[in-house]
Amino acid sequence: MENQKSALTEETLDPAEWGDLQGLARQIVDDAIAHVRDVRDRPVWTEMPADKKSVYAAPVPNGPMPLSDVYGELCENLMPYPMGNIHPRFWMWYMGSGSYSGALAEFIAAIDGSNLGGGNNAAAFMDTQVVNWLKQMMGFPDTASGTLVSGGSMANIIGLTTARNAKAGVDVRAEGVAAIPRPLRFYGSDQVHSCHQKAVELLGLGNKALRRVPTGPDFRMDVAALRAMIIEDRKAGFCPAAVIATAGTVNTGAIDDLAAIGALCRDEDLWFHVDGCIGALIAIAPENGHLVAGLEGADSVALDPHKWLHVPFEAGCALVRDGGLHRDTFAVHPEYLEEKPRGIAANEYLHDYNLQTSRAFRALKVWMTLKEHGVDKFGRLIDQNIAQATYLEGLIAEVPELEMMAPREINIVCFRYCPSDMPEAELRALNSEVMLRMQEEGIAALSDTTVGGRHCLRVAICNHRTRRADLDLLVRETLRIGAEVVQG
Amino acid sequence: MENQKSALTEETLDPAEWGDLQGLARQIVDDAIAHVRDVRDRPVWTEMPADKKSVYAAPVPNGPMPLSDVYGELCENLMPYPMGNIHPRFWMWYMGSGSYSGALAEFIAAIDGSNLGGGNNAAAFMDTQVVNWLKQMMGFPDTASGTLVSGGSMANIIGLTTARNAKAGVDVRAEGVAAIPRPLRFYGSDQVHSCHQKAVELLGLGNKALRRVPTGPDFRMDVAALRAMIIEDRKAGFCPAAVIATAGTVNTGAIDDLAAIGALCRDEDLWFHVDGCIGALIAIAPENGHLVAGLEGADSVALDPHKWLHVPFEAGCALVRDGGLHRDTFAVHPEYLEEKPRGIAANEYLHDYNLQTSRAFRALKVWMTLKEHGVDKFGRLIDQNIAQATYLEGLIAEVPELEMMAPREINIVCFRYCPSDMPEAELRALNSEVMLRMQEEGIAALSDTTVGGRHCLRVAICNHRTRRADLDLLVRETLRIGAEVVQG
Ligand SMILES: Cc1ncc(COP(=O)(O)O)c(C=O)c1O
Ligand SMILES: Cc1ncc(COP(=O)(O)O)c(C=O)c1O
Repeated sequence: MENQKSALTEETLDPAEWGDLQGLARQIVDDAIAHVRDVRDRPVWTEMPADKKSVYAAPVPNGPMPLSDVYGELCENLMPYPMGNIHPRFWMWYMGSGSYSGALAEFIAAIDGSNLGGGNNAAAFMDTQVVNWLKQMMGFPDTASGTLVSGGSMANIIGLTTARNAKAGVDVRAEGVAAIPRPLRFYGSDQVHSCHQKAVELLGLGNKALRRVPTGPDFRMDVAALRAMIIEDRKAGFCPAAVIATAGTVNTGAIDDLAAIGALCRDEDLWFHVDGCIGALIAIAPENGHLVAGLEGADSVALDPHKWLHVPFEAGCALVRDGGLHRDTFAVHPEYLEEKPRGIAANEYLHDYNLQTSRAFRALKVWMTLKEHGVDKFGRLIDQNIAQATYLEGLIAEVPELEMMAPREINIVCFRYCPSDMPEAELRALNSEVMLRMQEEGIAALSDTTVGGRHCLRVAICNHRTRRADLDLLVRETLRIGAEVVQG
Repeated sequence: MENQKSALTEETLDPAEWGDLQGLARQIVDDAIAHVRDVRDRPVWTEMPADKKSVYAAPVPNGPMPLSDVYGELCENLMPYPMGNIHPRFWMWYMGSGSYSGALAEFIAAIDGSNLGGGNNAAAFMDTQVVNWLKQMMGFPDTASGTLVSGGSMANIIGLTTARNAKAGVDVRAEGVAAIPRPLRFYGSDQVHSCHQKAVELLGLGNKALRRVPTGPDFRMDVAALRAMIIEDRKAGFCPAAVIATAGTVNTGAIDDLAAIGALCRDEDLWFHVDGCIGALIAIAPENGHLVAGLEGADSVALDPHKWLHVPFEAGCALVRDGGLHRDTFAVHPEYLEEKPRGIAANEYLHDYNLQTSRAFRALKVWMTLKEHGVDKFGRLIDQNIAQATYLEGLIAEVPELEMMAPREINIVCFRYCPSDMPEAELRALNSEVMLRMQEEGIAALSDTTVGGRHCLRVAICNHRTRRADLDLLVRETLRIGAEVVQG
């Protein structure tokens, strides 16, 4: 009786009618085809009108709404106002452009539902396989370990935590950083990504423990200066522990001399970490792979499939040469997470290499994308983006009003519109206005930055939809808008 | 000429033929309906045969494969072998069971493609709205801040990092943990989740800085013992800094006395963090909400939408009462990430509250799920799971061969099969074997743990597909398999 009543009243999130849901699901995937296929015909970005923004101030709903109505709201208030990074003329910050099959992968991963904390299931085997693939692509040995994480920032945290613990000289897991006899020093160039500051702060080392090594006019780390700092720090009683070399800086795409830094780290017994969020994948590019020679010798590498493999956010990866040190940094086995000889838990706990416990099945989108296209194609696409940046550099060289602001090494071009001799502050205001109008008119998304103390526009071509014609248009529009701004 | 050639040779990840892709996409969503709809008819878990496992040892593919063939491989080698957590009789570890609409949300988020590092776009507004909704659900003030993260472990890291920095008494971001005058002490019960050990190790405080406060027979933190430890540590020159109260322990579901711990923290000027990964959402449940009274007074809370809101992995959330302290812990503004008055970047950088830079659009699945079902339904589903656990407890009480191993407070039941007087080691072996056979036969997924020094089976009913009849079956099958194992 009790049972019968409860069977009647027991609720679930599953729909009463699967048929309706099927129709809606088909409509969603159909609409999405049009959305991605026709992206080139839309502005790169459209500002949300204020009345639409206010929709997002509503309080949490108490009652239900049919899923088709929820989707209707998304069609009206979400899909027309994205960041714009799937557009062929989005070259801002640094990120991939996604793909339709990547979105299908996210769907399938969620249907499968497995928790990648570990376990004896296909998703876990695929996770391990994807890490192995990335090791192969980076020239890392089979004995290396790795873990898929939320992105490059977390991949760097994984690498630097392992470095800290490996070099601490005490049981830092038990005793903490204060017990380290000689304070650790990490080194990165003055172009190092801000996530490293966050990392050393998180790790309790403090931002001052991350020394910024000067760069030359090419924005690559000055290796002689690095060597001098190491000697100086040793003399002052510090323990030089790790060098963060950047393979592709966020500002200009500069690639530190990985071979020289690797050799120095070996000589001086420092951990050699490579932040390859932007550039590590260049290793698979036939024409440009040589630019990251030395990467394969790193103690740890951070790389970012959600950049040049264009999988949907999020997917980063940390690789560690010495898998034992990696595991020793993160593994914990409480009584409720013991390893088992058989059954559902009979496999390695993947969270032993990671700060997460539950983990998404992000391996699937990397797996599907590499299966569908093959590694060779991604190598060609990377070469293509670098060739496009070279092409843009050529266009800029032909126009007197445009000037390059930093050497172009890979796919990032720093330049500015400079129609006449103007003070720096005016050029900054002028170029900022050009950038903002270009965004507001929906033409192209550039960002700006400051290199060598001077403000500039920045085009980062990590985009599989960009064509050279888009860069022609960029130059034309920069000149048009620039002239308009000057004329007032 | 050059241009013409390149237009011909420029490659993209987009398909040449969108029509084929549409057919495949429809097939994928159709298949997924059957997969989720019929889950009850399949075993909870099926071991992968060795020849299928070996598929995942293949090296990275160089060349392409039609997406439909890739999908074919998934149908064969992935979908039949999941972890099992979408099944109505999966009660292992602690995780949500997903939903079909959650998978659609993942798809749409990936199509939109926005990077939730921030920006002036609908996805970012929705992210902020979802955080506000979670604040409302937790009874947090509008002035509180929050951030969506990969899961509960990361949410706890966000809260504890803020606590460390707020209580350090020095500029710990610049100077590091070694500069803290009196070493910090954090407190959690002896039932605290292992992610807190990882957190204090990560933060450079060391595992010894996390003192384990004893629990009583109810597995709740002994608040008098906590108070004594704080006094003792102060005397010994430490700085008691933060208490981690658990609202729903992983072993038994015990809820620490949040009101008492909150009051103690206020009296003693300690940070009051609540690990609510399991239980914070009970706040929205009409019948059981009172169990987490006091939660709303926390300085920070970790909660986990990928558990009791059943959104696909990953979605955790950290809330911090003092948004300024939260931001001061994580914000960094390098030259390439300046805030802008207009255009694509004209909004708060959401990564200022987080360790990530790029961020997935995980807000969408939480948003869609709350819009579709409404908060009230999740409250009822939480009550339903707790009622189901109460029901199971009742069944166990009726059977002499089964014994409860810990008090049931919410939706976790710890029990064992104990047909006669046997030594603990034999009982452990017997119950482990019951658990493994139950998994291997695909009947139900339980896990095991050790509470109060004794081994037991553990049923955690965080599952919107479970019905009471499934628990009847669990009891029947435990007795059947138990008898079989005993008979040898
Ligand atoms: C050099 C570098 N390192 C690290 C990161 C952080 O990567 P993510 O945004 O994936 O966290 C970036 C982001 O662009 C980067 O350019
Ligand atoms: C009490 C508690 N805290 C934290 C966590 C970690 O959460 P997640 O797996 O989402 O990282 C869990 C996981 O079950 C938990 O039970």
